[in-house]
Amino acid sequence: MLEYRFDDLSPEDLHRERDVYGDLTQRTRTLIDAVLRTEVDVAEAQEVAAQLDALSERLLAKAREGSYGVAIGSDGTVRNYGNAVVGVRNPVAPPLEVQRSEEGRAWADFRLGAQYEGPPGLVHGGVTALILDQICGEAAAAGGKPGMTGTLTMRYRRGTPLGDLRAEAWIDRTEGVKTFVIGRMADEQGETTVECEGIFILPRWARKPVEEISESKPLRFE
Amino acid sequence: MLEYRFDDLSPEDLHRERDVYGDLTQRTRTLIDAVLRTEVDVAEAQEVAAQLDALSERLLAKAREGSYGVAIGSDGTVRNYGNAVVGVRNPVAPPLEVQRSEEGRAWADFRLGAQYEGPPGLVHGGVTALILDQICGEAAAAGGKPGMTGTLTMRYRRGTPLGDLRAEAWIDRTEGVKTFVIGRMADEQGETTVECEGIFILPRWARKPVEEISESKPLRFE
Repeated sequence: MLEYRFDDLSPEDLHRERDVYGDLTQRTRTLIDAVLRTEVDVAEAQEVAAQLDALSERLLAKAREGSYGVAIGSDGTVRNYGNAVVGVRNPVAPPLEVQRSEEGRAWADFRLGAQYEGPPGLVHGGVTALILDQICGEAAAAGGKPGMTGTLTMRYRRGTPLGDLRAEAWIDRTEGVKTFVIGRMADEQGETTVECEGIFILPRWARKPVEEISESKPLRFE
Repeated sequence: MLEYRFDDLSPEDLHRERDVYGDLTQRTRTLIDAVLRTEVDVAEAQEVAAQLDALSERLLAKAREGSYGVAIGSDGTVRNYGNAVVGVRNPVAPPLEVQRSEEGRAWADFRLGAQYEGPPGLVHGGVTALILDQICGEAAAAGGKPGMTGTLTMRYRRGTPLGDLRAEAWIDRTEGVKTFVIGRMADEQGETTVECEGIFILPRWARKPVEEISESKPLRFE
């Protein structure tokens, strides 16, 4: 069963959640890049490692048990801040700022650095799948057809260079509980590097909670 | 054009590369988890953020320009330490320690924490695609058919819980330059959560470099 967390955070708590922890997360992304590319000597690397341990300990002095999950505020705001693609509190997420339109379209412009590499100089093919899975799911949800991925088919046309990229997806058609979404990734010149088709299905066990939430308050993704 | 880096590191340099920087990377993974789950107050979060900046600066005082790429040592050891799935120097990689057998099979046991979440408590569907793309590619390479992903089709059977998991893949058949690989992910009980089929192709522009390298020295992945 999907467990959503309902809370009633004050404006101050919401600010801390998004801006303060979001800023901490962004600095951690910078650190990730530095750790991957550094060539400092052994003593310096070991000293930095020890200091990282101390900082982790400080942060864990007061911390949530388990994963972030998805939180829904009293105003209907959905916070999936732990999400591996869009989570503003997740240092492994680029993160994508996804734009949506009601006819079932979603897109994002973003930059992928060294930590998303597969073949030399290129984005890992699986990272393009990770991002397109999210964008296709967001397109389905934007069109009023939220669901989980049933199948996802990726077609790799050429290598995707690290750097500035765009991902976009749109609902192609629906058949009963299935929503067919088409997506693509493009490089800085707008050339398509990867295409995909995803089928999104709202599993039976998830239908009731989503209906209940949507009926009680309009959901707002931020 | 894929650019491999050839180098001639001393045993001491290789030790530093794998163990010292690998350890620094592992501590960074612990930090990532702490940043995602922390609930410390604003002042504390801001102080830790400032210290992270200082540590990043120290690491960047001497750092590689650009991404890590793939390095090949004088003994034929291939180091893809920057890889988003298996890279021991990449904090966003779990990292997977992939086992391989020569008939074209690859597998890994690993644990995914909060930073790989999609739906509450579940691994992001795109993260399972990221990992299976890598494992399928490794199976193809293990069977003597290295290539880049041409297509990848994912079938999601059920949610994949965060925690201990296994991914495995094997060559199903080859047709000319195409290698068909089947893979799956399984939860702690061994139940299949996701299945996939990938077609791997060695692009024309990559064939010559790979042949040249393989002919001049046997490659050894570590």
